[in-house]
Amino acid sequence: MSTKNQIQVAIDGKVLIISGYESEEYIQRVSYYINSKLAEYKKLDSYRRQSEDRKNILMQLNIADDYFKAKKQVEILEDHVAARDKEIFDLKHELMDLQRKLEDLQANATGTAQKK
Amino acid sequence: MSTKNQIQVAIDGKVLIISGYESEEYIQRVSYYINSKLAEYKKLDSYRRQSEDRKNILMQLNIADDYFKAKKQVEILEDHVAARDKEIFDLKHELMDLQRKLEDLQANATGTAQKK
Repeated sequence: MSTKNQIQVAIDGKVLIISGYESEEYIQRVSYYINSKLAEYKKLDSYRRQSEDRKNILMQLNIADDYFKAKKQVEILEDHVAARDKEIFDLKHELMDLQRKLEDLQANATGTAQKK
Repeated sequence: MSTKNQIQVAIDGKVLIISGYESEEYIQRVSYYINSKLAEYKKLDSYRRQSEDRKNILMQLNIADDYFKAKKQVEILEDHVAARDKEIFDLKHELMDLQRKLEDLQANATGTAQKK
């Protein structure tokens, strides 16, 4: 069983301790992503003039948007996998049919040769 | 070209107008996801006793965690699609080889029959 980690991160200049089962490397990657997004936002006048409350909600919406877009991609890829699985199934059947025909023909050819 | 939409959402009891190209339905779905997550968090003592700043960061980290997990799934599924594409390519080649063998045998069988 994995043990709980206590990981220190700095987000938006605030330091906090995250307690969980994720690796330090993972938590730091997630924090880096949030800080990069914040840095991008802070360049925008339209963001800077918002209240703290609205800034927070905008950030949450923006991260959630990334999540929903990734989820959509997951759905699309799952469809792709399913379509390919069907194609593989069909191809394998076609292959088996051909293999059978080939064996029949080879058996007939041998039979004809033996009769001669 | 699509026009920019002005969509009113309520997140954490605060109403704000979101301006963007996404559909109203999409923005509401994203807002619902954030509100559900907030509702779950608010049930926890460990969350309620945090400062507003820390609550916000925890929410951001939590949403970003969902995003990173979905992104990981995207990578895995992309690998699955690539592996299946390779399998399809191989199966098609195998099928072409068998088809050729079958045609050769059929041509030989016809030749033998004509000679008789």
